[in-house]
Amino acid sequence: MTLHEHSSGLLTDLYELTMAAGYFQKEFHARATFELFVRHLPKNRNYLVAAGLEQALAFLENFYFSAEAIAYLKSMPLFRHVKPEFFAFLQQLRFSGDVWALPEGTIFFSGEPLLRVTAPVVEAQLVETSLLSILHFQTLIASKAARVTTAAQGRAVVEFGSRRAHGIEAGVLAARAAYIGGCAGTSNTYAGFRFGIPVYGTQAHSWVMAHEDEAKAFRDFLDVFPEQCTLLVDTYDVRSAIETIISLGQQPSGVRLDSGDVLADSKWARRRFDEAGWKDVQIFVSGDLDENRIEELLQQGAAIDGLGVGTALSTSSDSPYVGVIYKLVEIEFDHRARGTAKFSVDKKTYPGKKQVFRFGQSGRTYTGDVIGLEDETVPDATPLLVPVMQGGKRLKTAILDPHETVQAAQKRFLESRKCLPENLLRNAKAEPAYRVLYSKRLEDLSEQTRQRFLKTATT
Amino acid sequence: MTLHEHSSGLLTDLYELTMAAGYFQKEFHARATFELFVRHLPKNRNYLVAAGLEQALAFLENFYFSAEAIAYLKSMPLFRHVKPEFFAFLQQLRFSGDVWALPEGTIFFSGEPLLRVTAPVVEAQLVETSLLSILHFQTLIASKAARVTTAAQGRAVVEFGSRRAHGIEAGVLAARAAYIGGCAGTSNTYAGFRFGIPVYGTQAHSWVMAHEDEAKAFRDFLDVFPEQCTLLVDTYDVRSAIETIISLGQQPSGVRLDSGDVLADSKWARRRFDEAGWKDVQIFVSGDLDENRIEELLQQGAAIDGLGVGTALSTSSDSPYVGVIYKLVEIEFDHRARGTAKFSVDKKTYPGKKQVFRFGQSGRTYTGDVIGLEDETVPDATPLLVPVMQGGKRLKTAILDPHETVQAAQKRFLESRKCLPENLLRNAKAEPAYRVLYSKRLEDLSEQTRQRFLKTATT
Repeated sequence: MTLHEHSSGLLTDLYELTMAAGYFQKEFHARATFELFVRHLPKNRNYLVAAGLEQALAFLENFYFSAEAIAYLKSMPLFRHVKPEFFAFLQQLRFSGDVWALPEGTIFFSGEPLLRVTAPVVEAQLVETSLLSILHFQTLIASKAARVTTAAQGRAVVEFGSRRAHGIEAGVLAARAAYIGGCAGTSNTYAGFRFGIPVYGTQAHSWVMAHEDEAKAFRDFLDVFPEQCTLLVDTYDVRSAIETIISLGQQPSGVRLDSGDVLADSKWARRRFDEAGWKDVQIFVSGDLDENRIEELLQQGAAIDGLGVGTALSTSSDSPYVGVIYKLVEIEFDHRARGTAKFSVDKKTYPGKKQVFRFGQSGRTYTGDVIGLEDETVPDATPLLVPVMQGGKRLKTAILDPHETVQAAQKRFLESRKCLPENLLRNAKAEPAYRVLYSKRLEDLSEQTRQRFLKTATT
Repeated sequence: MTLHEHSSGLLTDLYELTMAAGYFQKEFHARATFELFVRHLPKNRNYLVAAGLEQALAFLENFYFSAEAIAYLKSMPLFRHVKPEFFAFLQQLRFSGDVWALPEGTIFFSGEPLLRVTAPVVEAQLVETSLLSILHFQTLIASKAARVTTAAQGRAVVEFGSRRAHGIEAGVLAARAAYIGGCAGTSNTYAGFRFGIPVYGTQAHSWVMAHEDEAKAFRDFLDVFPEQCTLLVDTYDVRSAIETIISLGQQPSGVRLDSGDVLADSKWARRRFDEAGWKDVQIFVSGDLDENRIEELLQQGAAIDGLGVGTALSTSSDSPYVGVIYKLVEIEFDHRARGTAKFSVDKKTYPGKKQVFRFGQSGRTYTGDVIGLEDETVPDATPLLVPVMQGGKRLKTAILDPHETVQAAQKRFLESRKCLPENLLRNAKAEPAYRVLYSKRLEDLSEQTRQRFLKTATT
C-alpha cells in the first residue's frame, strides 16, 4: 500500500456501515447519486481550487474489505443482529459506480459539485467519509496556496510546512496541493519523488550551531554545494553573517532570512551584496509568512526574490477547514429517479444530478456560473464537470501518471486565475462576490421536491 | 507498509539531506542532541497533552532509504558535486540513536522537551521533519480534546471529525489522539480496528432522505438494530420526527440532534420522551460543536447525554497548529560535549540535555515544574522524561500493543488532569499561568554558552 492508496473499507464513519447493513438487510437496492460540494465559502476565500481527485479515484478503485476488517465488524456488539449474508457481501464488495468531477486545478464556488457519485446506495454511502476527507484537504490547501502565490506577485513561493502539517501524509499531500495552487515547489523530498514536484532546500540553524564558528559553517557548505547554495543568516546576527559571507569571497546562490526585521534586513542585504558586486545573490525569506504578511512586505519595498511559506500554508491556518458536504440528490428504483433534498431551515440542499456551466471560458474573464441539471445545455457556457470513472474503472481520459496530473492541474489553475475578475484576487473578501445562479429547471425541480415532501409530511 | 509506519528517508525537508551530505563529506562525525519542544503555548491553551510517541518510535525503528529513493536523490542537480560514498552511506543507514520522551498522555508546558534525540548528527538531523510532524499533530489534537472533554463535564464525547481532518491518515490519528485527550470514542471505524478505541455510529440524513417517508426510515433502522439504535431527527423537522418515533411505539436507545435550536429542542425532546415513559432514551447532540458551545449549552440547561464533536476537534480549528521546534542543544566530539543555543532576539533557546521535574505528583495538585539538566536531582519532584529507545531499538518498557498504549495514555492523562490547578481547566487563558522555572545550573550553562558565543563572534 503506497502513501496515497489507503483503501480499507473501514476508513469510514461507523454510521456508513450501519446504514449499509440496513440497506442490505431491508433489500433496499436503489441506485443513489450523491454530490460533494461546499455550502459556503470560508471567510477570507473568494474562490476555491479543486484538488485531490487523483487520490480520490485511487481510493475508489482499490476500495475493499479485508478478512480482518470483516472479522472486526462481526465482533462488534452493534452488529449482533445483522445477518451473516451482509458480511459475505462486504467481503466481495468493490466500488462499481460512475463518477463525474471537476478536473484538479479548476476554480469553483459554493454550491457547485466538486464530485458526483452514482452507484448502488450501499457503495455510494460507504465511500462518503474518505471521499470527503481526501478532496477536502487538498482543496483546502490548493485554495490557500492560490492566495499566497497571488500575494507574491510572481516571486517563487516554496511550500515549507511539512513539519506542522497534520501528520506525515498531510505533509506530502499539502506539498502536492500547494503546487497545484501555484507554488514553485516544496521542501518535502518525498513529494518531489512521488509527484515530480521541484524540491528546494537550504540549511537549518543547527548546521550553523553545530560548527564552532559561522564562517566555517558557511565555508563548508559552499564547498559541498558550490553551484546551488543558500546560506541561512539569522542564527545569531543577520548583518554580521552577511559581512562574513562577503568576506569569504565566494558568492552563494542565495541567503535566507528566517526571523527578525525582514523588511530592513532584506533591503540592507540587497545593498551590501550589490556593493560587493554580487547582484545575483537571491534573497529568500521565510518564517511565519502568510498572504497578508507577504503583501505587506512587498508593499513596503522589501527586497525579496523568493519566499518559503510553512505552517500557514500546510494547515491553511486562518481557515483550517472548508465546510464540504456529501449529499444525496437523487435515488433511483427500477429506473425511476426521484430527486431528494434537505429542507431544514439553515441547511437547504438542491435535488437532482447537476452540472456547472461557466460563462467566459477560454482566456476571457469569467462572468458568472450557472448550476443546472446535467442534461441542460446553456448557450455560450462551458460545462465543467467531466466523467472520470465508469463502472468503478477510471476512464482513459482520467489516467495520467502522477507527475503529469500535477503539472496539468497547476497549468489549469494558473490559466483560470488569469480569467478571474480582479476583485476576487485580493486578500480581502470580494464585494460583489462571483455570480453563481441556479437554472430555472433546477429551481423548478427543487420546488416540486419540496411540495412532494410537504405532502408526505402532512399525510 | 501500514498506515502509521511510513518510514521513507525521503519524508523529510530537503535541507536535512543537504546538511547530511555536508556533514558526511566534511567528515563531521559528531554526536548531537536535539530536543523537541514548544516555544509558547497557543492562545486558548493552558497546557498541552503529549501524544504520538508510538508512531514516532515506529518511524525511527523503520527509517530507511530504498534503492528508488537513492536513485531519485542522485538524479537531482543539487547533489551533482556530492561524492558517491554519501549515497552508499544512505543506503545502509538505519537510526541508531537514543531517545528520551514524555510518555503519551503526559501534560506539559512551553519550554519542556517532549522528546530528546541523541545520535550521530546526520541521523538526528534527517529524522527532524517527520518527528515534528508526527508528534505535533497528535499533541495538537489531544490538547484540543482535553478542552472539549473538560467542557462536557463527564458526558461522553465522541470524535466525529474524520471527514474534515487533513486527509485519511489525519482522520485515523485524530481519533487516536482525541481518545488520549479524554474522548469516549470515535466514529472512525479504522481507528477502532487499529487501536481498539470504542467506535460509535448512528445514521445520516441520507438514510432518511432515501426513504419515501421518515416513519419507514426509522422503523427499518429499529428493525435492523433493535438494541443499539440512535435515530437522527433533524432531517426535516425535529419535533415532528420525535412525535413520529414515539408513535411507532418502539423505544430507540437514543436520538441525535444535528442542527437547529439544540437548546430548546433537547429540553423539549427530554420532556416528550419522559412523558412517554421513555426516560432511558439518550439525547445525543452534534453539529458545529466546540468547547465554548458545549459550555454554553450546558450552562443554559440543555438536556444532553452525549456529544459528537467533529471539525473543531479533528482540525483543532481555533488553533490549528502548535509551534513545535526541534533544536540542537548539545554537540559532542571525542566524548567532549558542548552546549549549543540560539541567541537571536526573539528566538532564544537553552543549551544542554534537559529533564523536566514536576512538584506534586501522585494525586496531589501540581505546584509547578522545573526544567533542569538531565543529571540534576530535584528533591520532592518527579522527573517526567523517560528513556524509550537505545541504539535505535525500543526499550522493553516502551513496547506495548497498540491497544494497551492508547488505554495507558488516556488513563495517564485523566489522572493528571485531576491534579491540575483548577484555573488551568477553564476555557479562558489562565491567570496566573502554570509556573515553570529553569534550574540554576541550566541558567548558568546558558550564560556560559552565550559568553563563549560572544567571544567567538568578536574574534
